[in-house]
Amino acid sequence: MDNYMLEIGKKAKEASKILAGIDTRTKNKALMSVVDALLENSELIKEENEKDLKAAREKGISESFIDRLTLTDERIKSMANGVWEIASFSDPVGEIVKGFPHENGMKISEVRVPLGVLAMIYESRPNVTVDAAALALKSGNAIILRGGSDASHSNGILEKIFVDAITKEGVPEGAVQLIKNPDRALVNELVRLNDYVDVAIPRGGVGLKKAIIANATVPVIETGAGVCHLYIDSRAAIEKALNIAINAKTQRPGVCNAIETLLIHEESLGRILPFLAEGLVANGVEIRADEEALQFIPGAKAAVEEDWSTEYLSLVVSIKTVSGIAEAIRHIDKYGTKHSEAIVTESYEMAEKFLNEVDAAAVYVNASTRFTDGGEFGFGGEIGISTQKLHARGPMGVRALTTTKYIIRGNGQIR
Amino acid sequence: MDNYMLEIGKKAKEASKILAGIDTRTKNKALMSVVDALLENSELIKEENEKDLKAAREKGISESFIDRLTLTDERIKSMANGVWEIASFSDPVGEIVKGFPHENGMKISEVRVPLGVLAMIYESRPNVTVDAAALALKSGNAIILRGGSDASHSNGILEKIFVDAITKEGVPEGAVQLIKNPDRALVNELVRLNDYVDVAIPRGGVGLKKAIIANATVPVIETGAGVCHLYIDSRAAIEKALNIAINAKTQRPGVCNAIETLLIHEESLGRILPFLAEGLVANGVEIRADEEALQFIPGAKAAVEEDWSTEYLSLVVSIKTVSGIAEAIRHIDKYGTKHSEAIVTESYEMAEKFLNEVDAAAVYVNASTRFTDGGEFGFGGEIGISTQKLHARGPMGVRALTTTKYIIRGNGQIR
Repeated sequence: MDNYMLEIGKKAKEASKILAGIDTRTKNKALMSVVDALLENSELIKEENEKDLKAAREKGISESFIDRLTLTDERIKSMANGVWEIASFSDPVGEIVKGFPHENGMKISEVRVPLGVLAMIYESRPNVTVDAAALALKSGNAIILRGGSDASHSNGILEKIFVDAITKEGVPEGAVQLIKNPDRALVNELVRLNDYVDVAIPRGGVGLKKAIIANATVPVIETGAGVCHLYIDSRAAIEKALNIAINAKTQRPGVCNAIETLLIHEESLGRILPFLAEGLVANGVEIRADEEALQFIPGAKAAVEEDWSTEYLSLVVSIKTVSGIAEAIRHIDKYGTKHSEAIVTESYEMAEKFLNEVDAAAVYVNASTRFTDGGEFGFGGEIGISTQKLHARGPMGVRALTTTKYIIRGNGQIR
Repeated sequence: MDNYMLEIGKKAKEASKILAGIDTRTKNKALMSVVDALLENSELIKEENEKDLKAAREKGISESFIDRLTLTDERIKSMANGVWEIASFSDPVGEIVKGFPHENGMKISEVRVPLGVLAMIYESRPNVTVDAAALALKSGNAIILRGGSDASHSNGILEKIFVDAITKEGVPEGAVQLIKNPDRALVNELVRLNDYVDVAIPRGGVGLKKAIIANATVPVIETGAGVCHLYIDSRAAIEKALNIAINAKTQRPGVCNAIETLLIHEESLGRILPFLAEGLVANGVEIRADEEALQFIPGAKAAVEEDWSTEYLSLVVSIKTVSGIAEAIRHIDKYGTKHSEAIVTESYEMAEKFLNEVDAAAVYVNASTRFTDGGEFGFGGEIGISTQKLHARGPMGVRALTTTKYIIRGNGQIR
């Protein structure tokens, strides 16, 4: 094990012990101090960001990538605003989840405590640096950040501003550490630091997540991949089907809770698909349909096998005809990512069957999948949407960054 | 990927879909049918067990190992009784964890559902076969069992009896599958079957657990290692200290919530240790003490560095002198396994400090660590005691074998 990573791990663990005991007021003051520091230093942030942008342009990196990397006054303000919001969340640490007496008189309580040390591995959006550090601090955790090398200058200045601001309020500087050494092997060391890291959270593309899961020996929380479906049943109300399909596809196509595939009951093809296709196309959506569906939408592109498992994250939708709910559920089982799935139907039986049998973090009847979101579910913001089954499922608020411990107050009880 | 494991994984996944929808009554009837079948087939079980015992004796395996492997009428009865108890637990599946309306009128509920497919890897106690299968069935999960090769005949007959009994009640046979192929490489394949296995649970020694964690790409739930401490503060009441120390060490030394090390405040050495040592020795305990403590217990063995991290699981205790609570907590941090930790003190300040700062699944003031147990905490039996922080911490009941999903009932809502 590299000494460099070990030192970072140790420092984080030491800081986490102090953080676990810091009260809510101090954490919130530290976060508000970050808000001020971000706004005051926006020129400096943009200067450092410009170095990353220059290097990226020289490397000929794609425009969309450069767009995600770019920090403007507007975006810095939005980052600061995000921290302000996190300060306003209620603090999960110290919450008594339950409390009950043992029959021998001991008082048992289950109390919420921080996880300890988080490791966040992410790609090139520098706002994640601030967002993740703020969420960690709010939940009393230390965090080790490993951002993409293309954003190294931006991440470096953001970390510096963050740490300067929180240490002024008495938070230990080990609370937030950015790995500055660009050696890629360090990521693998980081996710195997079982003595110091309590959980690894990858944020980014499928490749990054798979690599982390394959190499990690610390527990991993997986978030975000969303190949979501809307199934339009034979008994779907046409207006609901059109509204929900168009909303779920087009309201914000680049996010994980947007749909990628429409599953349409064969009996609904004729009465719904022509209107639906018209609506989709009017909203700029490209359609890739199977053979049966193509008969009702002449001129649309034919779907290929690969379409069923693609998360387009853009204005493209695939359409698959199914013989009924059983085939729809089988398709979702096979190609879905257990994120968000919806049915449009007026049938009580089909609605219940879909809710019971579809295995996903969120399952909808007659509503858009776009609601799978911490804010919409009332959790006050989110770290991500868990598509795994252990620890947390669905939108994760700061509470997902905590665990519990049992506290037992006795007066001499023995067994 | 080996076809053999893949087939087992697929079959388990298929069964898990059916199991998720089976009602409580059917699951309980199937479990009661297992109870009957175990009792009716005890001769057959003993015959198969005798084959394992014969092979073990020929290999010259230790007596304590052979004892754990042996199935008697008494032990078969106790296994059946365990299944009966699991049938009597309340069913966690379908429980509504919370439910709330969205401001747009959608009804959101978080509902408890099975995890799906469990993989249990364990050593040679054949009762785990029955116990794990029954817990899986109760919580609506399919299970893949991989027992120690020394118990292959015993596990084989127990699986057969279990599956015959549950299929008679309409439970699919894929619900419980024992891996009969002795190839050790299959374990590594099993814990990398991410498409089919939702969680791996190793039960056994430290070596087994470490190997599983190092190789697994599916999530792992870690249970059980317990290097637990009792800290006797300078302000400890002597009678409480004696009772709790002797109980926590001797009431059942072979279990994970028994203590291995006593940490004694230097000011308590003279007033407590001589009496304590007398009580321990009277209960058959071997003491290994540090230099300072040895002055008060002439004739005791000297402790070596290795003692502080050893889970004796027997009538041995190590004794370490500390200068105060800070050193006690540092020692626990360094050598503990985050299982159960206790302080004996009459000081409010020390009690609160210990409760707040010790990082473990269960932290006690003035009570024995032996209470960390699903039954004692009122969870109706347990799968194990989680010493990790994600998903479940402390005693895990059947509920720890479930996850949740959000169900959203709308009438056309879009975002």
